[in-house]
Amino acid sequence: MKIVDFYLDFSSPYAYIAANIVDEFAAKHGARMNWLPFVLGAVFKDEGTRPLMEYPKKGAYSKIDILRSAKYHQVTYNHPTPFPVGTITALRVFYAIRSLEGNKGGEEAAKAYAKLVFKSYFIDGKDISSPQMAIEIAGQLGHEPDLIASRIQDAGVKAELKAVTDHAIGRGVFGAPFFYVGDEPFWGVDRLEMLAHYLKKGSW
Amino acid sequence: MKIVDFYLDFSSPYAYIAANIVDEFAAKHGARMNWLPFVLGAVFKDEGTRPLMEYPKKGAYSKIDILRSAKYHQVTYNHPTPFPVGTITALRVFYAIRSLEGNKGGEEAAKAYAKLVFKSYFIDGKDISSPQMAIEIAGQLGHEPDLIASRIQDAGVKAELKAVTDHAIGRGVFGAPFFYVGDEPFWGVDRLEMLAHYLKKGSW
Repeated sequence: MKIVDFYLDFSSPYAYIAANIVDEFAAKHGARMNWLPFVLGAVFKDEGTRPLMEYPKKGAYSKIDILRSAKYHQVTYNHPTPFPVGTITALRVFYAIRSLEGNKGGEEAAKAYAKLVFKSYFIDGKDISSPQMAIEIAGQLGHEPDLIASRIQDAGVKAELKAVTDHAIGRGVFGAPFFYVGDEPFWGVDRLEMLAHYLKKGSW
Repeated sequence: MKIVDFYLDFSSPYAYIAANIVDEFAAKHGARMNWLPFVLGAVFKDEGTRPLMEYPKKGAYSKIDILRSAKYHQVTYNHPTPFPVGTITALRVFYAIRSLEGNKGGEEAAKAYAKLVFKSYFIDGKDISSPQMAIEIAGQLGHEPDLIASRIQDAGVKAELKAVTDHAIGRGVFGAPFFYVGDEPFWGVDRLEMLAHYLKKGSW
């Protein structure tokens, strides 16, 4: 089974749209999505770019394009305020959950958290930048808030998020969502059709 | 009949791909493309951005994405060297031809020139930044080189290019190809499907 590395940050509307559809997409094409939350701000900094909304015209356009893209993919979207927000705690909670032993941890548990963070921000308008909120969302999934609060201070959890982010930068990632199949890069939820073609044919 | 304003610069690979398909696309959707060559560099400057290739990761990725996009739209593409290039003379020649009286001038004659400039650069690898080459391409279409060389010095021709560029910036254009249907903006050859939807439904 082919693995598709899927880079996302919880503050990215296009990554949110992708998150709603990529697993079904992957299953349809005989592949598996490897969810890799990362620090998008660090990626922008490395590339010498800025968050979308800091570009006056591109930012204004994007607000329209995000709504259209959400509708195109049949994903509910409410533009949140404030936007964008820092997501460092939520990102660490993802890796903290993934590192848990037993049925509370692992890939699927971490992914369930990622999806609920996205929903909390882009549907319910909650401030996911608040560390308390980021932990409370884990609590809604049955995780012990105190345990999560402690685990996100773990050096290993912090190092994992940094390693994923650094690896993304080294590989060539400059935005989100970003996909890799081996060395083949695909940027944007609007490249899923090309990604599907690549998964099918193995070439371009 | 709906008019779609189509902003392009001769140095933009994505605008080149669009140029190959937009007229057929418009006809299919009961619309007409209004070709508006403009100075993309001025648009970037206004937005605080740079040419694609000046972004290290996005530039490298784009070289892959351009080839894929060309193949997707069944458009022949040979990445030119040097890239990008200045196109100011070729842009002025477009408006010089459009301003000519009789059957040598007008929309269609100008559009034929635009298409041949694109082909000369993105298929034949000619240096369209050379004023001599930009005029020679007009000559290939039966225009008198000396007349064209004289007309591109005309204040009205220069002013027209500036006016189109300034109007684009005022409207919200920040890249190419860029399309407007009334006040509705669409950026990129990858938004033609959404543009088609909009032409059909009149809304989002």
